Amino acid sequence: MIVGAGFGGLEAAKALASAPVDVLVVDRRNHHLFQPLLYQVATAALSPAEVAWPIRRILRKQRNARVLMADVTGIDVERREVLLGERREPWDFLVVATGATHSWFGNEAWAPYAPGLKTIRDATAIRHRILCAFERAEAEDDPAAIERLRTFVIVGGGPTGVEMAGAVAELALKSLPADFRRIDTRKARVLLIEAGPRVLPTFPEPLSRYAQRALEALGVEVRVGAPVTACDAGGVAIGDERIPSATVVWAAGVAASPAAHWLGAEADRAGRVVVEPDFSVPGRPDVFVIGDTALARDAEGRPLPGVAPVAKQEGAWVGRLIAQRVLGRAAPRPFRYRDAGQLATIGRRAAVADFGWLRLKGWIAWWFWGIVHIYFLIGVRSRMIVALEWFWSYLTYDRGARLIVDP
Amino acid sequence: MIVGAGFGGLEAAKALASAPVDVLVVDRRNHHLFQPLLYQVATAALSPAEVAWPIRRILRKQRNARVLMADVTGIDVERREVLLGERREPWDFLVVATGATHSWFGNEAWAPYAPGLKTIRDATAIRHRILCAFERAEAEDDPAAIERLRTFVIVGGGPTGVEMAGAVAELALKSLPADFRRIDTRKARVLLIEAGPRVLPTFPEPLSRYAQRALEALGVEVRVGAPVTACDAGGVAIGDERIPSATVVWAAGVAASPAAHWLGAEADRAGRVVVEPDFSVPGRPDVFVIGDTALARDAEGRPLPGVAPVAKQEGAWVGRLIAQRVLGRAAPRPFRYRDAGQLATIGRRAAVADFGWLRLKGWIAWWFWGIVHIYFLIGVRSRMIVALEWFWSYLTYDRGARLIVDP
Repeated sequence: MIVGAGFGGLEAAKALASAPVDVLVVDRRNHHLFQPLLYQVATAALSPAEVAWPIRRILRKQRNARVLMADVTGIDVERREVLLGERREPWDFLVVATGATHSWFGNEAWAPYAPGLKTIRDATAIRHRILCAFERAEAEDDPAAIERLRTFVIVGGGPTGVEMAGAVAELALKSLPADFRRIDTRKARVLLIEAGPRVLPTFPEPLSRYAQRALEALGVEVRVGAPVTACDAGGVAIGDERIPSATVVWAAGVAASPAAHWLGAEADRAGRVVVEPDFSVPGRPDVFVIGDTALARDAEGRPLPGVAPVAKQEGAWVGRLIAQRVLGRAAPRPFRYRDAGQLATIGRRAAVADFGWLRLKGWIAWWFWGIVHIYFLIGVRSRMIVALEWFWSYLTYDRGARLIVDP
Repeated sequence: MIVGAGFGGLEAAKALASAPVDVLVVDRRNHHLFQPLLYQVATAALSPAEVAWPIRRILRKQRNARVLMADVTGIDVERREVLLGERREPWDFLVVATGATHSWFGNEAWAPYAPGLKTIRDATAIRHRILCAFERAEAEDDPAAIERLRTFVIVGGGPTGVEMAGAVAELALKSLPADFRRIDTRKARVLLIEAGPRVLPTFPEPLSRYAQRALEALGVEVRVGAPVTACDAGGVAIGDERIPSATVVWAAGVAASPAAHWLGAEADRAGRVVVEPDFSVPGRPDVFVIGDTALARDAEGRPLPGVAPVAKQEGAWVGRLIAQRVLGRAAPRPFRYRDAGQLATIGRRAAVADFGWLRLKGWIAWWFWGIVHIYFLIGVRSRMIVALEWFWSYLTYDRGARLIVDP
């Protein structure tokens, strides 16, 4: 049984395709989500269905796989059953790949004012806030209120924060101005706030500097070394400085899902389950935890980052391990993470790419970013449609999904 | 001032583009919706953003037009102001084009069990129900419960009902079977229930008969002369016959929006405002009501139907009338509805078209239907993307927007 059909869970299922096993994939949603492009849904560039696909559809041809949409409420490790409300589903091997959720670092009361971006629902809610802020500003007479509505704060300078800030700035600068009569959307203030010393902290420093300059060229105010100290309906505060804002997006913290609690396993402060080198839970060789839910380490003992390639490689490896074990064969060679590099886009013709041996920035990185992301989408249909949407946006600056739907 | 940016309101705004007036378009949503394709959103074929566009975007180039997203709460006819909550917006000429909503014919308690299809929100809610019914059936063990989950009832045999029934049947028969392991989605029961003697009652009888046969060929059970007498969480009843169903869609009744109440004007039983031949409210030559909100009559005294072409032609005519009046010129020639015909699609390669002098059915009507609907979409982007989505679905039977998003 595989719990969670994210990048890790799906790869585990696929790796078991030709093994003599029954695979049951359980997820509380019916779709697999391509999270790296979720910020484009939140900024009205893409529709949800362009970055999400039914799990059943993906596993349609894998005849040994069954998919169940259900909420996992607990795991009975002793009886080897997953609890789905009233129901129980038994397993011989369990792979827990339930991903991560937001964390406000102990300030969970900020959540309603600074929503995070992890699900389709999050993305459409943020899109709703951003578009409504412009609509309300257009109807507003009080200059201070207009200012607050026209201020967008993105907290967290990782790839998601950088990409959100760039996309909101382009929306305000390029897509919307001609549509409004009373307000000048080009005067929108977009702030990217990062507590650490630089944006894109996992990238080499020169690329961080380039990303900051590129954001600033778009009009984004980048604040580094600026931890958010308060957040409420009025906006955010950095120490004594208050920034009135109607739209705050939280791209700063993640916490693992409650898997450690379900399993009664040891976890780190972020809630990630501490796993053995083969991703099993200590003392439970039949229970594996992968992806953002696990604290795995590389050969040098450094924690592996919470990114899609790590989850995918772990999922594929654990799938093979289970297949080998069922067949009574030797385990595969120890897991080694192959780092294929990292990418982040800032805006039109601006991105950074770091492959270790090669660093790219500017338009070449941007094209590379676009091609890689189209390649990783699932299915010909999504690739064609996203390519068409991007091509159209590139020509016209238009955003295709500027819908405010009653929440 | 124009209240409502549906087919009628938008045409009225556009007809005033070169008049020496300020146009204010007020709508409670930020988008204009192409309702004829809404059933495709409800059946997971299209995404919302493919059939809806920001009103501001549509009127971007019309420099005398301003758009305001706001809820109209009343109209003060004496002071010539529209009430938007606390706010008031003054007008010299008012066009009310607020459309229609659902009516359960006095059984408003049925609403939660048999939702209607008028807005994006309605469409995604119905999509949610349909897709969840299959998901829950897959997880269910009790045969009676599976049967109920696999039964889909569409109430109302007009174009929306016929198109919904055909699309649900194709979803169950063609798109889903390979994705499910325990249930056979091809055994889904789709019922189209019509109180009157035939489906598509506004079409010539031979086309109604063809439509019924085409639906039956798709496996839809068509019940004519069958008024629904009860509706609850368990399903619907037709007299003594109970039909257990988890998914009921109401495509039967419409009622006008509360415009008559706002205006203190005379209305018919469906709530439509009785208007003069120039669409003004009797005694108020500065207030016009058009589209589904108005009861207008053709030269023979028959009420004009509540369809998009009527609303569009009325909107354009009233816009011209106002422009002429502001310029002090003679009124345009009296309004005459030019009936361009009617269309309805049943499923792959099956549709009906009635142009009065020409009737088409089968694949030729289906191609015509597709081309006309692409033509009427707004903008090159939507046309390209919908054409691509349809082309892809035609080749593969796949549905691109099968997302269940937490409500």
